[in-house]
Amino acid sequence: MNELALIASIRKWCKAASTPGLIASIGDDAAILRPRRNHDLLITTDFLIEDVHFTRGSLSPADTGRKALARALSDIAAMGGAPTYALVSLALAPWTTAAFVRAFYRGLNQLAGLHRVSIIGGDLSKTDKFTADIVVLGDVPRGLALRRDTARPGDILYVSGPLGRAASKAYKDVPRPRLDLAPRLLRKASACIDLSDGLALDLHRLCLASGLSADLDGPLPVSPGATLEHALFGGEDYELLCTLPPNVRPPTSLVRVGLTLAGRPGLVRFAGRLLKVRGWDPLRNPALR
Amino acid sequence: MNELALIASIRKWCKAASTPGLIASIGDDAAILRPRRNHDLLITTDFLIEDVHFTRGSLSPADTGRKALARALSDIAAMGGAPTYALVSLALAPWTTAAFVRAFYRGLNQLAGLHRVSIIGGDLSKTDKFTADIVVLGDVPRGLALRRDTARPGDILYVSGPLGRAASKAYKDVPRPRLDLAPRLLRKASACIDLSDGLALDLHRLCLASGLSADLDGPLPVSPGATLEHALFGGEDYELLCTLPPNVRPPTSLVRVGLTLAGRPGLVRFAGRLLKVRGWDPLRNPALR
Repeated sequence: MNELALIASIRKWCKAASTPGLIASIGDDAAILRPRRNHDLLITTDFLIEDVHFTRGSLSPADTGRKALARALSDIAAMGGAPTYALVSLALAPWTTAAFVRAFYRGLNQLAGLHRVSIIGGDLSKTDKFTADIVVLGDVPRGLALRRDTARPGDILYVSGPLGRAASKAYKDVPRPRLDLAPRLLRKASACIDLSDGLALDLHRLCLASGLSADLDGPLPVSPGATLEHALFGGEDYELLCTLPPNVRPPTSLVRVGLTLAGRPGLVRFAGRLLKVRGWDPLRNPALR
Repeated sequence: MNELALIASIRKWCKAASTPGLIASIGDDAAILRPRRNHDLLITTDFLIEDVHFTRGSLSPADTGRKALARALSDIAAMGGAPTYALVSLALAPWTTAAFVRAFYRGLNQLAGLHRVSIIGGDLSKTDKFTADIVVLGDVPRGLALRRDTARPGDILYVSGPLGRAASKAYKDVPRPRLDLAPRLLRKASACIDLSDGLALDLHRLCLASGLSADLDGPLPVSPGATLEHALFGGEDYELLCTLPPNVRPPTSLVRVGLTLAGRPGLVRFAGRLLKVRGWDPLRNPALR
């Protein structure tokens, strides 16, 4: 593999659907986009690193590509957006073969196609551990993006589905970003975050950002086969956690789990007791994810 | 270091200047931007990886941060754009200290400030070799972005300054992106690329994209202390290579080095002989950069 040849293959694998706003894609120094009128632009970036987020044996090459993109798509869902474009940067490990890269792109492109996301750029390099950094852009109607710092006291806390599944499967699942739900939350949710690092840690973050505390008083929806520990601290569920004012009817499928309070910012109670701020921390966690 | 504490420090170091188009910055699942009217959006992403692009001893921590950003800024310059925002993703190595991260951001922020670039997001993780992936966004007046695939036969080839300096200094320099020159090339240059991987390879790329061949017939501007080999194949000069129609007067400081021809796409002649397609290849190059 050399860089010119690999870029040529990647351009072929990622032939962008003709999108009205896409002026130039892979192959130049930068991609050129024409942003949509009356929309705000969302941008997020997520690493997927060997021996941090996956091991060679734990996921198929195609699922590795799917998971890399799914993580970033989930961030766009959490903002209430629709994903539009992605940039895929890969640093190849000594063991990485052309067949691995091809299967990685096959999985990634399949998920991208499902959500009408065009791959418009990226970078290539090498390093010791296979490293993907995925940038995803998204659109949201102007002024309507969901944030984590805008919940108000007395809002009701909802999650979008059962929790703990990823941890109970030793993180061998490919998460499904809740892009289906995102547009139905616009103009309803007062705040939103995706559950990437576990309910305990992500709810703490939402509360800290909004200057509120929270009380998890409802029964948690726990995935079949998962424990409460998995549901609270496991992470990688990629369901959404959102707040709605008490008078707003939630979209169907949301499950009420508690409410926000004007208490000490970031403090979370679960079944009446203080919940530890604990979950996935990429800098600290000695355990493999 | 844990993630929450490091993110809090980074937010402090990167307090974004109040920019009219910036709705939400570091701290949410994604950043929210309101794109400028009548402008196209540029986006590029560049890795800077330990033992590929630098070694621990070769650059100070602050220069490592400067270099990481400079590489991506140069891509925006090559498109004729003005940089606006950056996302900084870091995967820390076991040796990375809080002091290193702080100095890295100090250097990066200094260069960002110089070009009025706000740091609006990123990701944090860990791995074996220190890895930065820098995304830079830029604006360019609608429809005017410079590309590499739009040169025409008979256009004159120019470079923006002397070449070979980085190679002659064993790549211990921090490159200076030619953002000063970019706006003066709009409506003049027919194509442009930045010289990141050496004149021979980058001119080959421009010719291949434009379906042209080229003849380097002028004397090359070689940096003091550099050899012709450095200038042709060394890379990391981050000067611009551009084409202008023969009847267009170049901005001062551009140096004529040759012309494009309707020959075999990608073929480059230097002083009458075929020039090898050789330069920096991050997948192949066994030598350290």
